[in-house]
Amino acid sequence: MNVRDALRRRVSANRYDTVATVAAGTIEELIAAAMEAPSAYNIQHARFLVVREPEARAALQRIAHGQQKVRDAAATVVVLGDRRAAERLPLIAERAQRAGLFDATAAAAFAANGQAAYAGRPELARDEAIRSASMAAMALMLAATELGLATGPMIGFDPLALAREFRLDERYLPVMMITLGPAAPGNWPRKPRLAAHEVLVADARPGQDHAFSPAA
Amino acid sequence: MNVRDALRRRVSANRYDTVATVAAGTIEELIAAAMEAPSAYNIQHARFLVVREPEARAALQRIAHGQQKVRDAAATVVVLGDRRAAERLPLIAERAQRAGLFDATAAAAFAANGQAAYAGRPELARDEAIRSASMAAMALMLAATELGLATGPMIGFDPLALAREFRLDERYLPVMMITLGPAAPGNWPRKPRLAAHEVLVADARPGQDHAFSPAA
Repeated sequence: MNVRDALRRRVSANRYDTVATVAAGTIEELIAAAMEAPSAYNIQHARFLVVREPEARAALQRIAHGQQKVRDAAATVVVLGDRRAAERLPLIAERAQRAGLFDATAAAAFAANGQAAYAGRPELARDEAIRSASMAAMALMLAATELGLATGPMIGFDPLALAREFRLDERYLPVMMITLGPAAPGNWPRKPRLAAHEVLVADARPGQDHAFSPAA
Repeated sequence: MNVRDALRRRVSANRYDTVATVAAGTIEELIAAAMEAPSAYNIQHARFLVVREPEARAALQRIAHGQQKVRDAAATVVVLGDRRAAERLPLIAERAQRAGLFDATAAAAFAANGQAAYAGRPELARDEAIRSASMAAMALMLAATELGLATGPMIGFDPLALAREFRLDERYLPVMMITLGPAAPGNWPRKPRLAAHEVLVADARPGQDHAFSPAA
């Protein structure tokens, strides 16, 4: 399946096969695909809790305002963004050095520059965590589509209840949940999209007004 | 090219063919691919300014702290997130109705429910704009990879200068820039990623501690 096919075939699924399971190896493959997404300084802010066990799914369903798909799907991936991910830059630089991309001096400079960019800027670090985790989520959903698995991204849940019940350190911002598994019949067809010309200024220039059509 | 191949082949490119161009039709195709990304209530928060003309590229380079790749790449896509995108839900619901997904009553309820979810919650609307635009950006980069074009996501730019010089309404939050075009030789190889087991809890349960390894 090529990229554009996967983009067109993915729908946000609400109905799942309630007796299906997703193997641990498949989960690992999808998480590895998600981690291929880019992040500033290769910080890799995304982290993942995967909820598969029935009692845990029931707890997550309550956190998600009772939404049935969380109970029904073989798994739900809780996508987190690490607000303090830049702290890991020395490790990330060391691995790039081991892979032959940096010498020791360059690795140290890379880690120091990346950490300096976030020092005293918690809002930037929070926005970055959302950006990186969202790009990783998109990568995960497309890889799942290619494996024949349905997905459903969700923001309708209580992040405080999630953090409390799943004992999340406050550094991990819940960015979204993604239900995951073989689909059941009865999902919505794909919803129509705005056309490219409605959301695009194809030759933007400074000093000109840039409006999108339809405006509202 | 399948999805996982595209994920593994994409690198954040800094070096671009300085005389190449990207056709308007290709830009439209990539924006259409980006719009296939999901968004809550299908709100479709992402908007795009594409900067191709040499003088405009020079202006954008200054906004991006002088980064050469913005001058060199055939195009740079400024990915925006509309903080007030929920205002367009009646239009989006009407199009879903025309596509046969809703009757008139369901379309009205869909638009009203979506708008109610964001009423008086500007922080939620802002976070959503970042999430949706980031997922759209990932889709765009993978579609570009499939077309043989290099991309480089960037957050190193001055968003206030961008808004001022490109006369952006404050509703449009700059989420990232993506340099785009045929690559020149000399780009970095792919940077190594954390392994799935380092970023994943594969069977998360309430009441248990969830730590990632290495922790920092």
